[in-house]
Amino acid sequence: MPLLAQIKLPLVYYRKIAISPGLTTRMCITYSFSHEKPLILPLKLLIMAQKVSIPKGTRDFSPLEMARRNYIFETIRDVYKLYGFQPIETPSMELLSTLMGKYGEEGDKLLFKILNSGDFAKKANPEHWNTKNINKLTSQIAEKGLRYDLTVPFARYVVQNRNDITFPFKRFQIQPVWRADRPQKGRYREFMQCDADVIGSNALVHEAELVMIIDEVFKRLGINVTVKLNSRKLLTAIAELVGKPELITAITVSIDKLDKIGIDKVREELIQAGLTSDDVEKVIPIIELKGSNAEKLNKLVQLFESNEAAVEGKKEIDTVLAYLKNYDMTNDVEFDLALARGLNYYTGCIIEVKANDAQMGSICGGGRYDDLTGIFGLKDVSGVGISFGADRIYDVLEQLDKFPETTLQGPTVMLVNFGEKEMEYAFKAAIALRKAGIAAEVYPDQVKMKKQMNYANAKNFPYVIMVGENEINDNTYTLKNMTSGEQSTSSLNDVINQLSN
Amino acid sequence: MPLLAQIKLPLVYYRKIAISPGLTTRMCITYSFSHEKPLILPLKLLIMAQKVSIPKGTRDFSPLEMARRNYIFETIRDVYKLYGFQPIETPSMELLSTLMGKYGEEGDKLLFKILNSGDFAKKANPEHWNTKNINKLTSQIAEKGLRYDLTVPFARYVVQNRNDITFPFKRFQIQPVWRADRPQKGRYREFMQCDADVIGSNALVHEAELVMIIDEVFKRLGINVTVKLNSRKLLTAIAELVGKPELITAITVSIDKLDKIGIDKVREELIQAGLTSDDVEKVIPIIELKGSNAEKLNKLVQLFESNEAAVEGKKEIDTVLAYLKNYDMTNDVEFDLALARGLNYYTGCIIEVKANDAQMGSICGGGRYDDLTGIFGLKDVSGVGISFGADRIYDVLEQLDKFPETTLQGPTVMLVNFGEKEMEYAFKAAIALRKAGIAAEVYPDQVKMKKQMNYANAKNFPYVIMVGENEINDNTYTLKNMTSGEQSTSSLNDVINQLSN
Repeated sequence: MPLLAQIKLPLVYYRKIAISPGLTTRMCITYSFSHEKPLILPLKLLIMAQKVSIPKGTRDFSPLEMARRNYIFETIRDVYKLYGFQPIETPSMELLSTLMGKYGEEGDKLLFKILNSGDFAKKANPEHWNTKNINKLTSQIAEKGLRYDLTVPFARYVVQNRNDITFPFKRFQIQPVWRADRPQKGRYREFMQCDADVIGSNALVHEAELVMIIDEVFKRLGINVTVKLNSRKLLTAIAELVGKPELITAITVSIDKLDKIGIDKVREELIQAGLTSDDVEKVIPIIELKGSNAEKLNKLVQLFESNEAAVEGKKEIDTVLAYLKNYDMTNDVEFDLALARGLNYYTGCIIEVKANDAQMGSICGGGRYDDLTGIFGLKDVSGVGISFGADRIYDVLEQLDKFPETTLQGPTVMLVNFGEKEMEYAFKAAIALRKAGIAAEVYPDQVKMKKQMNYANAKNFPYVIMVGENEINDNTYTLKNMTSGEQSTSSLNDVINQLSN
Repeated sequence: MPLLAQIKLPLVYYRKIAISPGLTTRMCITYSFSHEKPLILPLKLLIMAQKVSIPKGTRDFSPLEMARRNYIFETIRDVYKLYGFQPIETPSMELLSTLMGKYGEEGDKLLFKILNSGDFAKKANPEHWNTKNINKLTSQIAEKGLRYDLTVPFARYVVQNRNDITFPFKRFQIQPVWRADRPQKGRYREFMQCDADVIGSNALVHEAELVMIIDEVFKRLGINVTVKLNSRKLLTAIAELVGKPELITAITVSIDKLDKIGIDKVREELIQAGLTSDDVEKVIPIIELKGSNAEKLNKLVQLFESNEAAVEGKKEIDTVLAYLKNYDMTNDVEFDLALARGLNYYTGCIIEVKANDAQMGSICGGGRYDDLTGIFGLKDVSGVGISFGADRIYDVLEQLDKFPETTLQGPTVMLVNFGEKEMEYAFKAAIALRKAGIAAEVYPDQVKMKKQMNYANAKNFPYVIMVGENEINDNTYTLKNMTSGEQSTSSLNDVINQLSN
């Protein structure tokens, strides 16, 4: 029975079979037709295209996104440097012994753990293995993890390198961190942190300079913000005022929600936390203090009388604000007694920044911590630092349409490729342009003009150079401004001068 | 028996006990003395300082190292941009299905795998679990891995985003990669790769421009190099010349060793690989070809006659060298028939760079690959790219003492802090200096002059400003050049002008 034709109908019938994660295989039937009746040949396995994707919660960044992200990082970096901060970097992986127990139980779960190389099962305790006791097994089969933040690795760095560091140590660090959080809008499993810290100095001038850094960064980025300031010591004073210092955490957790849930709900929460109605009536006027910073600070004296923590806390705020009087702030600094964050580690000033014109949580925050390196055995080293939330800042700039035009822009000029002779002529010009520091690219293939111009548009070249026979004969170049559409023909030197501006 | 004193003698007796990896505990005896005789109290467990370290094969980077590394990255980045390349970034983690099988069996072992979050044991096949079959278990308990290079993630990026990319796509990528290699001098488990690739164009102008990029980068870095050039097609031609195309891998592996083991050993290896003595006598003259690039290319015609692969390979080299004639190379380009690298993926030109004045392997390399994205189902997309070895370049610059002075330099100026009044005066000056774009720092604490100057020296401030009573009265500032030791007293404006240069 002769075969007239053999065709493949791969989509008529297929089944997905997982061979290994991500690899899918399609089984398809190959039909063969004779002039009499179709003959079904045996099933044939075809390895098809691999499904490509990236782990959930992670992102690729395109050239445009890179330009915009780098604009944010470079702005922050430049300002950090202006204030004498210097960069360091730490490894992406830390020993799990360094990371575990530093972020609470929930944090431990969110650490990405790296499977030991080689026979990871060998060192596992047989009983734990057989009972699948993953709590015990994890540290037996994984000794490294990805860093969860930049603070703990920095503390580890300081302790490990303490003999080489001259204190006070002012460092900044712009690196990714990883958290196995449930991904959602604006929350990623890999994201950048942009931290600056001073370690080894108690001076309050650092708090003031960090506020100035915040002001300068957001001034440069064109985002109007309010910098909120408080002292952890004043929160202590509130708990002491009602005679319940042991309730400080519960009290501040409630206070912290004022913005979100309003004063009545805060009242309820404070009662639930264990305060009496009388206590609450003492607390509410404090967190609702109105007026200028100076007015609020004055009222504090009446409210707290000579409570030691309150006196110290007020002095901190007074000092920082006094330093700032010498500086011409673009944004507002607001002393806010309801600001309560990072209670577990902050011991002095607390700083938080919100954008005035965009719906967004805190876009920068920080504070003073008196015992960061204590967890690694180096006691009594005080530090103060801030961290910019680059991803949120990105979203705010996008919302407000504040990214500068230049972040949209591709390389300066593309030279159109009209043919072999023109290409050679354009190639020489590209060499001269680059020598003058102008980013230039010759379209590599001799294809239709339209395709080349599509490429130039897609890549956002602000200029295109065209050369045809006339230009070659006259030793000239036709420069087209891609925004205005204007064209002019002139010598290479003239073109270089035009593009150098 | 009354206790007179209770003192701790923690170092009299201790034993190290591992509680969890990295956490050490010391057991110590607490003595109590009465007026009669010492009383030894029960053993007491004290959690002592945690041992701090980082995973082997990883590194911290100090501010000086950062300045030097950034100098290298920025040089490479600037030149890439000058040639129209644009940055992208991909996530640190990829799905293991994306990475596995792309680097050979050995590569699969060297991938860092990330343990699934939550109950990783739940999805494990019970039989594999009970028999500790780690080959099978790995993909069941770990679905993500850290990227091993930038090439495979780039191929994945191109396939995944192919509808948004306008080809040819010229991207560069400067990001860390991770390999669970045995750490040794110059080989790290986390290191940076600096790749540029053009994908979606067959034009040989890219090969030429990549050579120009290499030339420009090393010119800017001040390293004399030789850029070696060959074509994979000429290696194919050699195998065909002796009538043993199936031996191409063995033949090129031997040829590749010429530099290291010398011609006699290469002869032996070729015989072992399966070539006859006659074959070897045909191959040796080719890989030992001497003379200028033009002379070597001319001799090729005689050696290979009309072998198709040889003709094509020669044409590639001819074309690239012709493009380069328009460009004023600082470094030598050498057509080298013994250059054989990346045989598994390169299909056209091969490029390799060596430093002339330092003992170091290849510091940059690359080539043309005709089917990079084929592994992810996107066929017939040709690419060509290079990669700079930043760590080796760092070592070469250090060996040759070629890092510019500026990489040593700290922030521009430190203002000494002589007391409260002086501090306020200095603080105002710092604000003005920063406003003028000059990185300035006030020493935060009022400590001895010597300690402040030690800090200024350690941080490599090129200038220090001193203000005492005289300066405050005269409204002046004393500027000290820390290199020359020169001092001068002048107005703030004058100081700013001096430091702005």
